[in-house]
Amino acid sequence: MLFKLRLIFEQPVFCCEEFLVNDKIMVFMTLQNLITDIEEVEALYLDLKTRQLNLDLTRGKPDGSQLDLSSGLEGILQGQTVLDGVDIRNYGEILGLDSCRELGAEILGCEKQYVLAGGNSSLTLMSQYLSSLFFHGSGEGPWSTKERVSLLCPVPGYDRHFKLSEEFGINMIPVALTGHGPDLESVRQLVMNDHSVKGIWCVPKHSNPTGEIYSKEIIEGLLEISKEAKQHFKIFWDNAYAVHDFNNSIHLEDIFSLAKDFDILDSVVAFASTSKITYAGSGIGFLALSPSNLDLFLKHYLALVIGPDKVNQAKHVKFFQKNGGVVSHMQKHAEILKPKFELVDRWLSKQNLGSWTRPTGGYFVSFTSQEGLAKEIISLASDLGLKLTPAGATFPYGVDPKDNIIRLAPTACSIKELDQAMEVFNCCVALATLRRNS
Amino acid sequence: MLFKLRLIFEQPVFCCEEFLVNDKIMVFMTLQNLITDIEEVEALYLDLKTRQLNLDLTRGKPDGSQLDLSSGLEGILQGQTVLDGVDIRNYGEILGLDSCRELGAEILGCEKQYVLAGGNSSLTLMSQYLSSLFFHGSGEGPWSTKERVSLLCPVPGYDRHFKLSEEFGINMIPVALTGHGPDLESVRQLVMNDHSVKGIWCVPKHSNPTGEIYSKEIIEGLLEISKEAKQHFKIFWDNAYAVHDFNNSIHLEDIFSLAKDFDILDSVVAFASTSKITYAGSGIGFLALSPSNLDLFLKHYLALVIGPDKVNQAKHVKFFQKNGGVVSHMQKHAEILKPKFELVDRWLSKQNLGSWTRPTGGYFVSFTSQEGLAKEIISLASDLGLKLTPAGATFPYGVDPKDNIIRLAPTACSIKELDQAMEVFNCCVALATLRRNS
Repeated sequence: MLFKLRLIFEQPVFCCEEFLVNDKIMVFMTLQNLITDIEEVEALYLDLKTRQLNLDLTRGKPDGSQLDLSSGLEGILQGQTVLDGVDIRNYGEILGLDSCRELGAEILGCEKQYVLAGGNSSLTLMSQYLSSLFFHGSGEGPWSTKERVSLLCPVPGYDRHFKLSEEFGINMIPVALTGHGPDLESVRQLVMNDHSVKGIWCVPKHSNPTGEIYSKEIIEGLLEISKEAKQHFKIFWDNAYAVHDFNNSIHLEDIFSLAKDFDILDSVVAFASTSKITYAGSGIGFLALSPSNLDLFLKHYLALVIGPDKVNQAKHVKFFQKNGGVVSHMQKHAEILKPKFELVDRWLSKQNLGSWTRPTGGYFVSFTSQEGLAKEIISLASDLGLKLTPAGATFPYGVDPKDNIIRLAPTACSIKELDQAMEVFNCCVALATLRRNS
Repeated sequence: MLFKLRLIFEQPVFCCEEFLVNDKIMVFMTLQNLITDIEEVEALYLDLKTRQLNLDLTRGKPDGSQLDLSSGLEGILQGQTVLDGVDIRNYGEILGLDSCRELGAEILGCEKQYVLAGGNSSLTLMSQYLSSLFFHGSGEGPWSTKERVSLLCPVPGYDRHFKLSEEFGINMIPVALTGHGPDLESVRQLVMNDHSVKGIWCVPKHSNPTGEIYSKEIIEGLLEISKEAKQHFKIFWDNAYAVHDFNNSIHLEDIFSLAKDFDILDSVVAFASTSKITYAGSGIGFLALSPSNLDLFLKHYLALVIGPDKVNQAKHVKFFQKNGGVVSHMQKHAEILKPKFELVDRWLSKQNLGSWTRPTGGYFVSFTSQEGLAKEIISLASDLGLKLTPAGATFPYGVDPKDNIIRLAPTACSIKELDQAMEVFNCCVALATLRRNS
């Protein structure tokens, strides 16, 4: 047993030290608590198999009790048909209802004048913004005329950013995350040496899946790089978890204020939505842009959309007015989510076999196994009836070069399901690790 | 006076005869009722100017009383959170709720399996479908790799089709309408002689703005041409006014059935929405595609959207279940709309100075002035406080080569406003016509 443990211990761990930031995200890679051996783990695995489980940790979505928090949306208008002086049932208001733009500004922590309140999906706004760059560009000519356009992709990251970029034929270049944002030196080198690099995808708060929060230094660093690149380097700021804190509100710098200080307001394009605030898929998507970016974008956007669903926008505005605002509403989500994340952490801590994040908000835990084991663990779990996000899904083109990152999404399960799922997960991690090193 | 009248009468009239179809769309170009002379018209014009009017015939949108017909949508779910076995408040169901696809099939008059129920805008579905062709094509490689892609645009047509095509860098080629669809011989010549032609925009029922309804012969002709072109000629079937009849239900052939008979189901892509059935901008958009086109499209669509707003879809499903279905609901719209279209017709008939359509449904009347007068009439009206759709708006690139088409949208006004607006319009038509010929 000692021999096995030594072997495991000698394996290098991906980014281990760099994930230790401000006590917010913690990582472990020790085996001192591993008190079992491979035969015991194999026996547990066989036992779990007999249970014929059907569990799922792939779904980064709210559970039913979270959705119930927004049941007040139904019927909230009580016959009201006018808000901000416009008939919400008719065409018009391409930027969204004024008071809904205000709501977006509150969530994004920026000025209302930057905000466009759109349809039910920030992802669709991202696609429409990329489309505008594709057909018109943003000062350097349409992307469609370029031989190559590249975007930097901090990894592990959000799979839908990568799928969307791939659909648009964009070349994706991974850059490492540090625990408080992307590695600036890599970003700088790539931007300065490869003129096809036009931007970077960022999930700056409770990042999917690493849970990290971008530091002021990193944000300023990205802005500096964009300034050096004459703003041809755009920061796609997907603030998907802007108000999704587990405890007290956690501060993220307002990137627009900083960009204003740098005099490069056009470098930033921000996104958010209420999908994980009210209803997933029936919320409001937001886009925030500098005034001149907004003018450019609207030329394209006006050709693609008829205007937003203002009835739903009005419902959201009234709902938060009636329920003490967004932050108070998010505390109710936190009460449901916290126990789930604590449970995941307790299970992972029992075994300490790998490293993982301990997020202060958001929807994910990122687990780092020994290199070359992620696919194996996911396959073992699948055989026990536990679905895990496919290995590589959090990397561009679906390729995790070290095959060691597994994204865990604990929110959609019940506590009981999650407890079972984590037992299965731990068993599969232990089995794969021990088999490899036995 | 007689001299003046003779001069006018000798001017050729655009497509006059061809608009006379099945008594559904009527045109006139006589002056026998013109009993005034230019001085009288000038005096009326000055009198109207003193009234400082503020009128608008540009808006192809429902008025408040039409929107009131759908007030039952608010609160209709009464706490129901599950429909068709899915939680309507959470992510998922990329094709839309099953029962909402059924609703789309009823509106489009096609099979449910072809229908995708999307967000609040068929225009956005059009943009996403074009985007899929741009990046993937449909059997001939991505449109982005082609030197030139052209779409045929029956004229006068829907300005947003033209704006959207222009945004995608698509070359637009106008083809004449006949009163029952586009001129087939022109279509055939263009498709056979120009391989950049990849499709045609059609509004097959109560066409915007001519009000015409495509005949079975024309539909079959378009399908034949597509068959000859090996389905590389796509028919973009924007059935925006599918159920928007003023009197009894008016039949339009199911193009999918006909396409099936021709064995070219992949040639047709259909669109519809409830924007002018329930709420404009807060309705449901539909896309209908052959199974193989749907498979191709979904690859792209899944990268752009998170899924539709199923809460709104469920509300629509329940609303029509509760209110006797779509056709019964549309009769209530017809009762509001018919008097407005009759009023327009009465005013135009008083003067008989030009030709115009007499639609049996939809939202528009298309007025044809003497050649070279549309801009002048619109400018005169503007000076009197009546906004009219800009000349050329119903043509690709905003250019009406004969400068004689004016689109009138009588739905958004009250009857009183419409009455004033038509008095102004008649005056401006008479003044422009008499000035030209005096």
